Amino acid sequence: MDFLTIIGIVMGFGLLGASIAGGGGFGLFIDVPSMMIVGGGTIAVFLMNFTIPDLKALMPVFLRTFMFKLATPAEEITRVVEYATLARKEGLLALESRLKEVDDVFMAKGIQLVIDGFPSEVVRDIMELEAEWQGQRHAIGKKMMDQLGGYAPAFGMIGTLVGLIQMLAALDDPASIGGGMAVALLTTLYGAMAANMMFLPLSGKLEIRAKEEALLRALMIEGIVAIQSGDGPQLIKEKLKTFLAPSARQSIAA
Amino acid sequence: MDFLTIIGIVMGFGLLGASIAGGGGFGLFIDVPSMMIVGGGTIAVFLMNFTIPDLKALMPVFLRTFMFKLATPAEEITRVVEYATLARKEGLLALESRLKEVDDVFMAKGIQLVIDGFPSEVVRDIMELEAEWQGQRHAIGKKMMDQLGGYAPAFGMIGTLVGLIQMLAALDDPASIGGGMAVALLTTLYGAMAANMMFLPLSGKLEIRAKEEALLRALMIEGIVAIQSGDGPQLIKEKLKTFLAPSARQSIAA
Amino acid sequence: MDFLTIIGIVMGFGLLGASIAGGGGFGLFIDVPSMMIVGGGTIAVFLMNFTIPDLKALMPVFLRTFMFKLATPAEEITRVVEYATLARKEGLLALESRLKEVDDVFMAKGIQLVIDGFPSEVVRDIMELEAEWQGQRHAIGKKMMDQLGGYAPAFGMIGTLVGLIQMLAALDDPASIGGGMAVALLTTLYGAMAANMMFLPLSGKLEIRAKEEALLRALMIEGIVAIQSGDGPQLIKEKLKTFLAPSARQSIAA
Amino acid sequence: MDFLTIIGIVMGFGLLGASIAGGGGFGLFIDVPSMMIVGGGTIAVFLMNFTIPDLKALMPVFLRTFMFKLATPAEEITRVVEYATLARKEGLLALESRLKEVDDVFMAKGIQLVIDGFPSEVVRDIMELEAEWQGQRHAIGKKMMDQLGGYAPAFGMIGTLVGLIQMLAALDDPASIGGGMAVALLTTLYGAMAANMMFLPLSGKLEIRAKEEALLRALMIEGIVAIQSGDGPQLIKEKLKTFLAPSARQSIAA
Amino acid sequence: MDFLTIIGIVMGFGLLGASIAGGGGFGLFIDVPSMMIVGGGTIAVFLMNFTIPDLKALMPVFLRTFMFKLATPAEEITRVVEYATLARKEGLLALESRLKEVDDVFMAKGIQLVIDGFPSEVVRDIMELEAEWQGQRHAIGKKMMDQLGGYAPAFGMIGTLVGLIQMLAALDDPASIGGGMAVALLTTLYGAMAANMMFLPLSGKLEIRAKEEALLRALMIEGIVAIQSGDGPQLIKEKLKTFLAPSARQSIAA
Repeated sequence: MDFLTIIGIVMGFGLLGASIAGGGGFGLFIDVPSMMIVGGGTIAVFLMNFTIPDLKALMPVFLRTFMFKLATPAEEITRVVEYATLARKEGLLALESRLKEVDDVFMAKGIQLVIDGFPSEVVRDIMELEAEWQGQRHAIGKKMMDQLGGYAPAFGMIGTLVGLIQMLAALDDPASIGGGMAVALLTTLYGAMAANMMFLPLSGKLEIRAKEEALLRALMIEGIVAIQSGDGPQLIKEKLKTFLAPSARQSIAA
Repeated sequence: MDFLTIIGIVMGFGLLGASIAGGGGFGLFIDVPSMMIVGGGTIAVFLMNFTIPDLKALMPVFLRTFMFKLATPAEEITRVVEYATLARKEGLLALESRLKEVDDVFMAKGIQLVIDGFPSEVVRDIMELEAEWQGQRHAIGKKMMDQLGGYAPAFGMIGTLVGLIQMLAALDDPASIGGGMAVALLTTLYGAMAANMMFLPLSGKLEIRAKEEALLRALMIEGIVAIQSGDGPQLIKEKLKTFLAPSARQSIAA
Repeated sequence: MDFLTIIGIVMGFGLLGASIAGGGGFGLFIDVPSMMIVGGGTIAVFLMNFTIPDLKALMPVFLRTFMFKLATPAEEITRVVEYATLARKEGLLALESRLKEVDDVFMAKGIQLVIDGFPSEVVRDIMELEAEWQGQRHAIGKKMMDQLGGYAPAFGMIGTLVGLIQMLAALDDPASIGGGMAVALLTTLYGAMAANMMFLPLSGKLEIRAKEEALLRALMIEGIVAIQSGDGPQLIKEKLKTFLAPSARQSIAA
Repeated sequence: MDFLTIIGIVMGFGLLGASIAGGGGFGLFIDVPSMMIVGGGTIAVFLMNFTIPDLKALMPVFLRTFMFKLATPAEEITRVVEYATLARKEGLLALESRLKEVDDVFMAKGIQLVIDGFPSEVVRDIMELEAEWQGQRHAIGKKMMDQLGGYAPAFGMIGTLVGLIQMLAALDDPASIGGGMAVALLTTLYGAMAANMMFLPLSGKLEIRAKEEALLRALMIEGIVAIQSGDGPQLIKEKLKTFLAPSARQSIAA
Repeated sequence: MDFLTIIGIVMGFGLLGASIAGGGGFGLFIDVPSMMIVGGGTIAVFLMNFTIPDLKALMPVFLRTFMFKLATPAEEITRVVEYATLARKEGLLALESRLKEVDDVFMAKGIQLVIDGFPSEVVRDIMELEAEWQGQRHAIGKKMMDQLGGYAPAFGMIGTLVGLIQMLAALDDPASIGGGMAVALLTTLYGAMAANMMFLPLSGKLEIRAKEEALLRALMIEGIVAIQSGDGPQLIKEKLKTFLAPSARQSIAA
């Protein structure tokens, strides 16, 4: 799983937990009905907003974003150059022997298309369409996180209003004000935490990942089309290096 | 009706209802004047904002969005391929026998145009214009929901201000503060609930539905024009599959 | 005047008035200095923001939007078809006899240009420029309403802050807190009402009217140019019908 | 100076001042440390945000916007037509005699270029570049006002938080609460007033002025190029009139 | 380091510090657990949001923005004209002797490409790509600052909610309310200060710097390509002057 995300989660919740523990214990901050209003309400509205196919499409996006590590552009360039060398020496069909070692489904599909002998524009068209579909799935995932990040604080506020109204209506005993307000404010806290420590950072991460993946896909498309058109490995390497930030270019041996 | 929307509504209002019931009963949360300010005020402003033709156009959009199930793209592809097979064997006029079984008005209109012998560009132009009109109606529907989702909390705040001012002006008896504030806050709660549990999720749903419908309309246009130009059923199927997400493509038998 | 706008205004203020009357009378909600801060401040900032020519241009826009009823597209199509029939039978100059009965200045100008014998592109250019100017005036009107809808709540807040500070500084007599705060909150209420019950709905209405008028102008331009080029009335009717929503097309007799 | 701006300032501050005077005097609303936090903090952040060349470029923009009156488009059209008449009769070089009476630097530069005999495209290119630079300076000025309008309320809130914390920590004497809170709220009031009565209206005014100036520059460019190409004065007048709103066209004698 | 930024920081924190010192001392405003929640929480979420390569790329951007002074466009024009004179007299290879004195890596790379004899379009393509990468790094830096400027107040609010809930739950002793609330509000103050006195002004500065640098890069590209194509120094100077604001053009001797 993504390393920085884990550090961030541990650090964020750790600091908050320490502050809470130091201020009198966790018991005060756990209230199941409050959690049900914020958590359940947010999920309920989320279900109203999206459709089952959207939700199905979301899972692989999340898995890929947080569980599997994307190859770096530098690694992919090395791999493309290696295949280009092989294809030059032994012909495009020789790539078939390497197909099994390719983890990335997108890359594998592109190589398969080349082996199957499709013309260059068809290979490019199919792969670009595939890349666009991946981009759209990321965009939907980001949109979902943004919506959740907006609904969670709203339900936090709704819960606090409910709590306040109940407390105010039963204001016979002034001594109970404090406790009632503390509980009423819990939902606002839950909503703010859910939005700012979960949904919005995940939305940001998905956006960045989508950009990285789009760059990688564009690099792969250029690489595969170049292999197919018989470009020399050295030329291909130079071409693909333009996809790298200048500071990252040294990491590829000349 | 849309399944997830129902689950969402039941779940959202159920959780909130449970929390309210547990906290002292519903009586506290029902106040007719407060409902009149938020509900009536929002509707009043809504009427100021839109026109009668807009409101008329809204009804069929809502019915179609929440009552009728759209065919999935896969179903439509199967249907188009079936018609293409028929048209190839027995000519375009043979499609007339199938026209009655087509529920979708858009699809039926396209087939009728083909049967009537209009040239290909005319069929495409007319159908694209029709699809655009449908898209615009969806956009107006979404805009209305967004406006309602903005005005409802505003009237909630106006109601709370009115209540607060009335309560503060009559602050002779400190014991009545609690009850007065509870009632004053009700309108804010109503506004927040109306916006976040009704108008904004519906706006989100309409947006997603509009995208789905636009995709389906584009697929239908391509399919009908391909049938008219006499393309083979297998070729048409391959063409239309590009409208599907890759993960959905297996669901169509080769 | 626009029917829905009137219903909306009556309903919105009526409901609020009823709720206020039920809660102790209007006297509580009328405070001239508070009105001066919100109303005067908003107008003052509005004057700082715009220029005299802008303000002059605003009046006819408002009059046209709320006082005069636009012809419906269907009515205009009927009229254009009638003129086309006349022009076909008796020549373009015969249109002059009808010029007096045309209320709409835009339409009249277009017909005059045709009678004067200007070439087709010139007629189209002049009328499109005219339509664009009208669109720009609407856009400025909408911008003004949006600005007013932003400044009114801001001055409401400024007024409340002034009132709170005055009240807090004179906090010798705790019994006066309630009344002081009630008056201080009045400006916030005025600002929220001015924005949400006046400026923002008017902005929404202006936007919708601008779209309707733009559609009508485009329809008129096409119609007049078609008359000039001698198209048959039936063909013109079919062409112009594409400007109508499909559901509105039946209203024009074939 | 701009007339409406002055009226707006006088009216806005006058009304607020009257309301303050009526509520107990100005002394209550003047607190130098609070002014230092809001005013100084806003300026401090403004300095962090911009650069010295930006600040230098701002001065002439402000002077031009609020001190000098722009010529109206109608005046400029009259002037251009007059010069065109002269140039037609006595040749382009005759314009030199009029150069001294041209106040507007932009116009003068254009005429000088024509006298110097530069080809038509060069004149147009240079003047359009110049107009674009002016537009950019206006855009920076507007951006600065918007930033100030955002930072001022933020520092108002920071000041109020500082004041509240100080007051709450010293809550021994309940009688002092009122006065402490009154002072704490002053910074919020200052921030809201600075933003809504100064920075945001100025930003709006700058935007409108930028549009007016851009229109005037475009008109001047067309006029000068038309003079250079020897167009007749009547033709030039008709061309330039399209830059005027229809309602303003009568003001130019035929 | 950037002069105005330093003045701004000193002035902003100085004024706030003075106001705090005058109101009872700094001790009240320093609370380590509160700092940990706001500072740590913001950093934690920041880590969740971005990736290690992003963070690595940030450092040089910040160093360049705040530590090194960019050459002014006028200085670069002078330098380009000097090199053009040299190249005209002694040939392009003579530039090699000057290469060592060029601090700016971008400029040096361009000159090296010219010396190496690459064709003109290649030099332009490579340099434009390089400039685009620099622009993207600035954009990521700005985005990071904006995110931090949004998360800091959010964690301020979360901290305040935690503090309020703890205080309210332990409301046995009314005398402790003041102190508890003062501490609870500290996190809101920290968040507002971090956002408005650090992250948002830095974001604004980065944006302005990015624009300046983009202008400078475009000027350098035009200059180097012009040197390569053998343009005369005087012509090059005139060309490059169009990159300067008119008011800055005098500063270059004819």
